[in-house]
Amino acid sequence: MLEGLGSPASPRAAASASVAGSSGPAACSPPSSSAPRSPESPAPRRGGVRASVPQKLAEMLSSQYGLIVFVAGLLLLLAWAVHAAGVSKSDLLCFLTALMLLQLLWMLWYVGRSSAHRRLFRLKDTHAGAGWLRGSITLFAVITVILGCLKIGYFIGFSECLSATEGVFPVTHSVHTLLQVYFLWGHAKDIIQSFKTLERFGVIHSVFTNLLLWANGVLNESKHQLNEHKERLITLGFGNITTVLDDHTPQCNCTPPTLCTAISHGIYYLYPFNIEYQILASTMLYVLWKNIGRKVDSHQHQKMQFKSDGVMVGAVLGLTVLAATIAVVVVYLIHIGRSKTKSESALIMFYLYAITLLMLMGAAGLAGIRIYRIDEKSLDESKNPARKLDSDLLVGTASGSWLISWGSILAILCAEGHPRYTWYNLPYSILAIVEKYIQNLFIFESIHREPEKLSEDIQTLRVVTVCNGNTMPLASSCPKSGGVARDVAPQGKDMPPAANGNVCMRESHDKEEEKQEESSWGGSPSPVRLPRFLQGNAKRKVLRNIAAFLFLCNISLWIPPAFGCRPEYDNGLEEIVFGFEPWIIVVNLAMPFSIFYRMHAAASLFEVYCKI
Amino acid sequence: MLEGLGSPASPRAAASASVAGSSGPAACSPPSSSAPRSPESPAPRRGGVRASVPQKLAEMLSSQYGLIVFVAGLLLLLAWAVHAAGVSKSDLLCFLTALMLLQLLWMLWYVGRSSAHRRLFRLKDTHAGAGWLRGSITLFAVITVILGCLKIGYFIGFSECLSATEGVFPVTHSVHTLLQVYFLWGHAKDIIQSFKTLERFGVIHSVFTNLLLWANGVLNESKHQLNEHKERLITLGFGNITTVLDDHTPQCNCTPPTLCTAISHGIYYLYPFNIEYQILASTMLYVLWKNIGRKVDSHQHQKMQFKSDGVMVGAVLGLTVLAATIAVVVVYLIHIGRSKTKSESALIMFYLYAITLLMLMGAAGLAGIRIYRIDEKSLDESKNPARKLDSDLLVGTASGSWLISWGSILAILCAEGHPRYTWYNLPYSILAIVEKYIQNLFIFESIHREPEKLSEDIQTLRVVTVCNGNTMPLASSCPKSGGVARDVAPQGKDMPPAANGNVCMRESHDKEEEKQEESSWGGSPSPVRLPRFLQGNAKRKVLRNIAAFLFLCNISLWIPPAFGCRPEYDNGLEEIVFGFEPWIIVVNLAMPFSIFYRMHAAASLFEVYCKI
Repeated sequence: MLEGLGSPASPRAAASASVAGSSGPAACSPPSSSAPRSPESPAPRRGGVRASVPQKLAEMLSSQYGLIVFVAGLLLLLAWAVHAAGVSKSDLLCFLTALMLLQLLWMLWYVGRSSAHRRLFRLKDTHAGAGWLRGSITLFAVITVILGCLKIGYFIGFSECLSATEGVFPVTHSVHTLLQVYFLWGHAKDIIQSFKTLERFGVIHSVFTNLLLWANGVLNESKHQLNEHKERLITLGFGNITTVLDDHTPQCNCTPPTLCTAISHGIYYLYPFNIEYQILASTMLYVLWKNIGRKVDSHQHQKMQFKSDGVMVGAVLGLTVLAATIAVVVVYLIHIGRSKTKSESALIMFYLYAITLLMLMGAAGLAGIRIYRIDEKSLDESKNPARKLDSDLLVGTASGSWLISWGSILAILCAEGHPRYTWYNLPYSILAIVEKYIQNLFIFESIHREPEKLSEDIQTLRVVTVCNGNTMPLASSCPKSGGVARDVAPQGKDMPPAANGNVCMRESHDKEEEKQEESSWGGSPSPVRLPRFLQGNAKRKVLRNIAAFLFLCNISLWIPPAFGCRPEYDNGLEEIVFGFEPWIIVVNLAMPFSIFYRMHAAASLFEVYCKI
Repeated sequence: MLEGLGSPASPRAAASASVAGSSGPAACSPPSSSAPRSPESPAPRRGGVRASVPQKLAEMLSSQYGLIVFVAGLLLLLAWAVHAAGVSKSDLLCFLTALMLLQLLWMLWYVGRSSAHRRLFRLKDTHAGAGWLRGSITLFAVITVILGCLKIGYFIGFSECLSATEGVFPVTHSVHTLLQVYFLWGHAKDIIQSFKTLERFGVIHSVFTNLLLWANGVLNESKHQLNEHKERLITLGFGNITTVLDDHTPQCNCTPPTLCTAISHGIYYLYPFNIEYQILASTMLYVLWKNIGRKVDSHQHQKMQFKSDGVMVGAVLGLTVLAATIAVVVVYLIHIGRSKTKSESALIMFYLYAITLLMLMGAAGLAGIRIYRIDEKSLDESKNPARKLDSDLLVGTASGSWLISWGSILAILCAEGHPRYTWYNLPYSILAIVEKYIQNLFIFESIHREPEKLSEDIQTLRVVTVCNGNTMPLASSCPKSGGVARDVAPQGKDMPPAANGNVCMRESHDKEEEKQEESSWGGSPSPVRLPRFLQGNAKRKVLRNIAAFLFLCNISLWIPPAFGCRPEYDNGLEEIVFGFEPWIIVVNLAMPFSIFYRMHAAASLFEVYCKI
């Protein structure tokens, strides 16, 4: 998705920018034979204090500042969560408000400065801030502003016994959200080349401010989910679990009462979108921070278009899954906690639904990887911060849900007694691990591929330039070309067979490796061909259907945990094995990452779909 | 230090290797105009199944496997820590033993294969596995084997009621330690080019096995520290804190009793070294994993030598600090917990000692940075996995201790009552944050500098090649060179003044930036010169003294927390504000990183010392 933070890597340049901005090099610039001199660290000047700090050092200066602020905020959140003596909610809200105001100041300065220097063309990273990504963050931001208004209403209702900060915070947060979205629309693609050290502090401050707002949203939402879970346990008569409600409701009456209860319930249905908005904003700002001072050359690269033709199968299947999911979640939320039998049937229903869905998704992912593996293309391994952050986030957030899955597996293996429904949890947890493993590989392979159309032109280009250069007709130099090249002649181009597929180009990099690892290339291995229906355009169609199907499935799997359908709580077996408190801590820590994984995977798959 | 995992980056090549190994490219290789084709992904082959997986994909395949195993192990550790029902210590030890045996198998296969193919020269990353690093890991490994023997003795003593795994585990662990150190001596520098996908799984398996052994060591040691802390609280009469001893001692008599008590105490004084060994081994193996399939060109680079002349001041000061630290720790451990007044005096003594030391270290770090900033040299920003891991570890582990420091600051600000000694904790915590911030910058700047001797040759080389190339005598092209260049003429070489310092080379990359950000270069700013005593060799001497002093101070600051001198526990204020359990969880999670930070910083400073 952050690759959506940047559209697919152009094969041309390590990093492409749409407009070269700054003036050319001076008359006599040193050929830095080794380390590429970053624009920020000019040729060494004798005696004079170096005007600006080298890029790497500035990165560390600002990243340490950001971490220190982040750690302080985390601790304040922890203190509030455990009802630490002397730490009230208004202390926490004051801290967050101060961070937001500081960021607002910086954004206003940045926007003002860049509009004042309109003529200084800004270098842009075309990989960053894809249109549809900015669209989705705007949608989440709108919901966040609505959440802010509800909170203001909540404050007005309980104004008798709430401190002023509980009113100031939602106002500041809404203003902050609006300006930040405006800022991201205008500057997410910027490659900042001036005032670099100061800008780094500003951008990293914004990254960690959003991360703290994300953690605050997650904490509020988890407390609410936990309270609901405890209430269910009380109705189900589980006496042995310490069910002290973690009560933060104000100690005074709210006027008008009906409105207050509606607001206090409504608030928690909007939190998932606010949580997504904050994490999306911090990842986009992180890419902006990584791009500061980056050296790019200018090249326009292939625009991604969203075409919806030819994906009937994938879309229909996906939409059916989406509908089924909504039905399952509604039934689950109605039944869970009403009575023991109803809870068990709700859990069994959920597990059966999830097992089927995960098997389908795993199969689709495997098929996609299989197609890629057979129809190999070189991977684009150029440097691309947005894409690197994408893969790291995919694997990192998946680890969060693996923690919960292993917890369930361990609980089932070690528990003495097993109520019937708990056995469904075993295949569900194993499939949850395997499906994410496969899906990450499929997404990773897709976002690292050179775009289909371009890659064929390049190969043709490569073949022509190399062989013409050394006046050695390709056919004679590659006796083995045979007929293999024919089948991939780019459509409509009348290319001599030998020239359109550089079959002969074999960088026999490591003879020893070839003998041990690979079937001997020389001895013309029985070529495993893509079946006819999977060649050329048909292959692309299958991959697009897979991407569309997986996209809709991930959206579907984002809905249950985001809206309170959490069998990890309701199952009860893990709480018995690990103990209530430890298991709740594990779930509260891991669940946000597991939820973000689904949204992040969906965004990445949307991009994969556009790219194929 | 991991840079010690690799000696300083040679300015010549992005990554240098001592011997080029594999055969040259084939007759007609495509000029990959864009993404550098990784050796693993050969030119696209039509039809035939791709023999090996592209490098990037193989990285994700193996890293996800490693994370899944790691997360499972973490959960087993958590289950044992919270006395989860049905999870016993032998389950945990079985899991760890199985991982070690699997790693042993892989290492034996690897060592066997590489000795069988002696003739196939192995590419070596000269940055990885510096000699002194392998020396220190061997020292820690020896202590780990001693710890293993003590555990075997402990098992024999309590054999009546201990399961067999408690005996098998220390035996396997000792064998694993011996073979792993042998493996690291022989292969830490390898750049694996064959069987890459299989090797990746083997190496990443080893990385996470060592990380799990590290987590196991940390857990055992924290439990012991916590028990001792609770015993002290009981003697001090703190009734309000839930002081159930987390008792894992076997329920049978040990024969001979005196030996058993000696062993059970001795074990916990060796754990800090075992913990260091495991984390060092996993970081060295991680560098080996990052180097798999990396493209390097061959170049021999400057060897680092350890010279101890001219660092009298730094060494003497450092050794005084070391002696003082040992005294403080001994007095602290004797007094703490004996009585209220004794505990308070021990805490005040520790805080005063730490405040003075941190101020000295902060000043030394600032001086070092100041010297670097004035006598600027370009930073070597070439790609170097060992060095990147170094900086990430420095900042990452520092965040652990920043969490504890912010906890103390918050507790002091929010607590109602403040016993006298708690006020010393405020400056101590603030200094702990600031000192690490400064020290990281000093280390970062040092390990990214081009080595002193080489960098002057390069500049001369750069200047000569560039200007001779375009037959434009330097002086005329750089009217501003003036006399500035003279003062840095490399010793002993009779170079024309203009040619020995490429003062004129000014990549006026961004005119607009120059006006806003930097004092105008053109208008010959008043050059801030290093004072005479800081020029040339004298500068190097001062930096070496700073590095030696900081090295010894970090070793000193590693000792107190590693051997049980933990005011974060004994202070008591944080426990009152946050609550006993939450604060203990924060300290148990953050303390291992804080301890590792000191050892990692000491190792990096040792390298900085050798490099200056």
